[in-house]
Amino acid sequence: MLPVRSASSSPYSRPERDFTAANTNAMTQPSRRDLANAIRFLAADAVQQANSGHPGMPMGMADIAEVLWNDFLKHAPHNPKWFNRDRFILSNGHGSMLQYACLHLSGYDLPMQQLKQFRQLHSMTPGHPECKDTPGVETTTGPLGQGFANAVGFALAEKLLARQFNRPEFDIVDHMTWVFMGDGCMMEGISHEAASLAGTLGLGKLVAIWDNNHISIDGHVQGWFTDDTPARFEAYGWQVIRDVDGHDPQAIREAILHAQAESAKPTLICCRTIIGFGAPHKQDSEAAHGSPLGKDELAAARANLHWPYAPFEIPQEIYDGWRAINTGHVREDAWNALFDRYAQHYPDLAAELVRRSHAELPQDFAAAADAYIAKTQADGPEVATRKASQMALEAYGPHLPELIGGSADLAESNLTIWKGSRNVLDEVAAGNYVHYGVREFGMTAISSGLALHGGFLPYDATFLVFSDYARNGVRMSALNPAHVVHVYTHDSIGLGEDGPTHQPVEHVASLRHIPNLDVWRPCDAVESAVAWKAAILHQAGPSALIFTRQKLAHQQRSAQQVADIERGAYVLSDPAEAKFDAILIATGSEVELARQAAVALAQQGVKARVVSMPCTEAFDRQPLEWREGVLPGWCRKRVAIEAGVSDYWRKYVGLDGAAIGIDTFGASAPAEQLFPYFGFTVEKIVAAVKDLK
Amino acid sequence: MLPVRSASSSPYSRPERDFTAANTNAMTQPSRRDLANAIRFLAADAVQQANSGHPGMPMGMADIAEVLWNDFLKHAPHNPKWFNRDRFILSNGHGSMLQYACLHLSGYDLPMQQLKQFRQLHSMTPGHPECKDTPGVETTTGPLGQGFANAVGFALAEKLLARQFNRPEFDIVDHMTWVFMGDGCMMEGISHEAASLAGTLGLGKLVAIWDNNHISIDGHVQGWFTDDTPARFEAYGWQVIRDVDGHDPQAIREAILHAQAESAKPTLICCRTIIGFGAPHKQDSEAAHGSPLGKDELAAARANLHWPYAPFEIPQEIYDGWRAINTGHVREDAWNALFDRYAQHYPDLAAELVRRSHAELPQDFAAAADAYIAKTQADGPEVATRKASQMALEAYGPHLPELIGGSADLAESNLTIWKGSRNVLDEVAAGNYVHYGVREFGMTAISSGLALHGGFLPYDATFLVFSDYARNGVRMSALNPAHVVHVYTHDSIGLGEDGPTHQPVEHVASLRHIPNLDVWRPCDAVESAVAWKAAILHQAGPSALIFTRQKLAHQQRSAQQVADIERGAYVLSDPAEAKFDAILIATGSEVELARQAAVALAQQGVKARVVSMPCTEAFDRQPLEWREGVLPGWCRKRVAIEAGVSDYWRKYVGLDGAAIGIDTFGASAPAEQLFPYFGFTVEKIVAAVKDLK
Repeated sequence: MLPVRSASSSPYSRPERDFTAANTNAMTQPSRRDLANAIRFLAADAVQQANSGHPGMPMGMADIAEVLWNDFLKHAPHNPKWFNRDRFILSNGHGSMLQYACLHLSGYDLPMQQLKQFRQLHSMTPGHPECKDTPGVETTTGPLGQGFANAVGFALAEKLLARQFNRPEFDIVDHMTWVFMGDGCMMEGISHEAASLAGTLGLGKLVAIWDNNHISIDGHVQGWFTDDTPARFEAYGWQVIRDVDGHDPQAIREAILHAQAESAKPTLICCRTIIGFGAPHKQDSEAAHGSPLGKDELAAARANLHWPYAPFEIPQEIYDGWRAINTGHVREDAWNALFDRYAQHYPDLAAELVRRSHAELPQDFAAAADAYIAKTQADGPEVATRKASQMALEAYGPHLPELIGGSADLAESNLTIWKGSRNVLDEVAAGNYVHYGVREFGMTAISSGLALHGGFLPYDATFLVFSDYARNGVRMSALNPAHVVHVYTHDSIGLGEDGPTHQPVEHVASLRHIPNLDVWRPCDAVESAVAWKAAILHQAGPSALIFTRQKLAHQQRSAQQVADIERGAYVLSDPAEAKFDAILIATGSEVELARQAAVALAQQGVKARVVSMPCTEAFDRQPLEWREGVLPGWCRKRVAIEAGVSDYWRKYVGLDGAAIGIDTFGASAPAEQLFPYFGFTVEKIVAAVKDLK
Repeated sequence: MLPVRSASSSPYSRPERDFTAANTNAMTQPSRRDLANAIRFLAADAVQQANSGHPGMPMGMADIAEVLWNDFLKHAPHNPKWFNRDRFILSNGHGSMLQYACLHLSGYDLPMQQLKQFRQLHSMTPGHPECKDTPGVETTTGPLGQGFANAVGFALAEKLLARQFNRPEFDIVDHMTWVFMGDGCMMEGISHEAASLAGTLGLGKLVAIWDNNHISIDGHVQGWFTDDTPARFEAYGWQVIRDVDGHDPQAIREAILHAQAESAKPTLICCRTIIGFGAPHKQDSEAAHGSPLGKDELAAARANLHWPYAPFEIPQEIYDGWRAINTGHVREDAWNALFDRYAQHYPDLAAELVRRSHAELPQDFAAAADAYIAKTQADGPEVATRKASQMALEAYGPHLPELIGGSADLAESNLTIWKGSRNVLDEVAAGNYVHYGVREFGMTAISSGLALHGGFLPYDATFLVFSDYARNGVRMSALNPAHVVHVYTHDSIGLGEDGPTHQPVEHVASLRHIPNLDVWRPCDAVESAVAWKAAILHQAGPSALIFTRQKLAHQQRSAQQVADIERGAYVLSDPAEAKFDAILIATGSEVELARQAAVALAQQGVKARVVSMPCTEAFDRQPLEWREGVLPGWCRKRVAIEAGVSDYWRKYVGLDGAAIGIDTFGASAPAEQLFPYFGFTVEKIVAAVKDLK
């Protein structure tokens, strides 16, 4: 049983204050409106100083944020990483100054000097919230709707960790996930995917607060957004609290208390707000949305809201009303004391939670993975790499209780379920499998949320071609960064009959272009096992693992070659003679073809090296010596073979080499016919090598 | 006023038949179930023969399709391109055999031999419906949800054309758009975006029929899809007809009549169906979804449904019940007669509709465009290319009544509104601007629908980074192909303070990888005007136009150079001396930098050519002579400069050259600081040239 979470009954809640009194110029006891105005003017002044940014949302949501942060948010500004903190996510991330203002005012290590540097190079206050730059920012937001979907992941992480680790009298994991969202988030398709799944999952500790200000960039939304949003969310199984006056602190308080009282459903609080609240000539219009108010309007807003202070001047009374450092210490100390007692009662659980919350892999993992990889090399199974992926999950999964996976309704195709998979919908502690439904984008952003929460190592999966649906979510996983594994099967024309709508052609190359994303396209079960190991160890960012639908040959390798796979590219075979004339570079299903072509070339007196290059990013990170050893500069007779667009491969074969790929859409036919039809034959490769000058 | 559209009152409706009688082995008068069973067994047998495909959906929706096609669909099988036909779209495109069966049975040029070749190379029956392969397929479907969004575009096209061209007593444009969709379509986020906008637009002649079979690939949807979908669509302002028995022809008929009677709202008909209906052991389970039934189950289904015929055997009585060729002729002849009278009364309108329905550009367009381009070269405006794009719209728009545009809530940023823009929501004939709201993916698929309907040349717009949200929609516009223009502004770190979430880095290169998509990144107002002209003339597929937020310099050019821009790459400047030492290749905002670097190099005695390459695809299509003239093979000292990922440029600079780009995420700061910070300076380019061996 979870404890009652109403803030008023919490031992950590702050004493009730009378914040409803009207403001006076002599500020001895600031009103709630005064506290909120601190957000308004920090935001509007910072935007004015940067001559860039979005004042409208912070001014519109200031009253809501003030109530949430000062009455409800369970956090510890001195320790932004305190594990049991509430998570606060700004899905309408263009309102970043609202978050920066709240962080600054409540006592995070975000000094005023940084607020003055809003949107400047190397500041802690970039244009949109970035979790790598600013303490207290849980996830990078701005691309609309994704913060909301991240929040679903955060709330799911909390629910599952609580189920796994909490014990009677020890609610070690027990926090809310709060997310602010705007009309833009509501219009995006990902809001449908994430809200629908959150309803199915019954995420009772997720509260979304909708900034219903009727304005988006093009103007009043009546011309393009006429949904009955409350009815829509009720259709998803959410509790919906309608028509809350987003400028009435008491109404906001009551709505939030109501939200916290519901433990079986997520809650949407619909707040009617005025964008740019307080700016007399620009509020309630798109003019307040994305441009500085201007000096005159700012002055008028100051008069209108009785805010006599200079830009970036915050009176001590306002700070006093906001500061949460002491309560944060009290909260964390109390939790630490609880955790100490928990550790006495449940030392293994406590140690495991510490390990997982610190993202430390089990000590035996690497050795176990290496043993499995060596065994796979010895056994030489000839399977589809999607099957090899599942085999790797079976081998690694028992060592990794943090592993949580799922697929966008393609479990039996992506082969993402292993023996240890347990549906998170079942009320079992080991819940670690999410049936995401046909929701690629939502799934991907939820994965990032699960990872960013801490305690989980998520994988998600769909057909490679449908990584398109999730593409900005993949990008955001790399930008945050979030340690997640994107599993993409059915990786080429090799999927056959489903045809060009389902055959990725440009996808592997396009994924390689995303910064900070490692893309692996293994050629057999051994490389697949190494790819999974590498993805699990690569905590600096996400990895995309690209697997075939069809069966692939097993490659012979020495122990040293097996060890070299993780370098991203290595020599799979050299001609018997010392020196070679040409290099064949291939990935995935085309490696066996390259090997066969090298044999055919040898019969014709051409000595070819075969390089398997499962991960170009890992290869590019190797020292020059390694790269030169694999692809020596003197050999310009290079042919790359990959069943995807060829342009990418000019990076390795240059203008003198050749790249055998597919630069058109595919076709619907059995795969055995498609490979020769599109030119993937030993003969073509041999001819390409011989054609090189 | 539109005529009453109820099928029963239409002069074209078929005589009522008694199709409700039970089946007997002696088939003199086939029942409706018999007619539907023809779909079931054509589908199941074709899947069995191909050993690949999806029998479940065709067997589940056969009764619905039979009623729709035989009682309502206003089409002309002998002329699949008859302009006033109803549009039928299969958003759950994996059920392609349902559509092929209906096309075959009703008399389209899709012979039985082609059905036997289902999913084989070069057949007219690919795994998913492809509009370039099969008569009667309006749009390529399979990626879930997109066919539904296409359908919104089709219905919008009909509504707007009717408004523009119909006159009292002359409802020349008057047809329905029907779309089948499954649970997968419903789960996808794009269903939210498209349905929401369709509700706002009041598309009364759009009818979506939902195959509510409770099964998706992972099994019964209860574990991942618990929406109250009817309530959701009501929240969008749709008419929703609930709980229709999808196996009861009379109930289906009544629902469709009800849908047609509502002219102000789109209609969702919720049909409860049994996936794989008739296969006794596999129906109502995921086993029927995506695999052949198997010989035993097929035999059991034959017995169960009293279908004694061999695979691909259709008795004449069944054909007689399905054939729509004669009624199609009658329909088309009647429409032609109406159109002839219309042409007598409104000769200009009739000629214009013929022109637009044949996608013929106005004869004066190319000359007008060239005049504008020459004038722009002479005037030399120094503007952001997004502004140059708007100027091109102002110049070309008055010549192109077929132009219809919109932006995903970024009209004032993308600069997509020109003086001739009229909101489609206003009841004016000239409606040609759609406020799409924050719905990039839906917008893009709706654009394709508008184009594929005929009569319109659509453009859509968002920030380049959010092309990610629409990426599979862009791909589908290229695969169909659809003649649309994707306008992407804010094309690099040059957008400045919004930071890495909004700064595209990998996007231009990744878009170039999509087959059959022309990507233009112009360097000034002149190249922008040429890019727009090229996109308008390039009817074989979509174009993506990439524009800056920030102001760019004007480049000097001769008339010949201006004419050469459309070749995709051309020499912008050569050193005064005949021979050059190095080539600088640049696009967009980096062209001026390259020009300045060439000047600096000249001062240091290095003679550099400057090549502007706004469109690599157009350049690659040029004859070798042109390509060699611009980038002669003897010159390997090549430096490419583009504010995006550098790997792509190895295609043109090889291993010997250099590529100056950005291979990390960007940063939040004023653009003037970001370009030097990321290495885009004259000094760096000079150094890069000098470093080349």
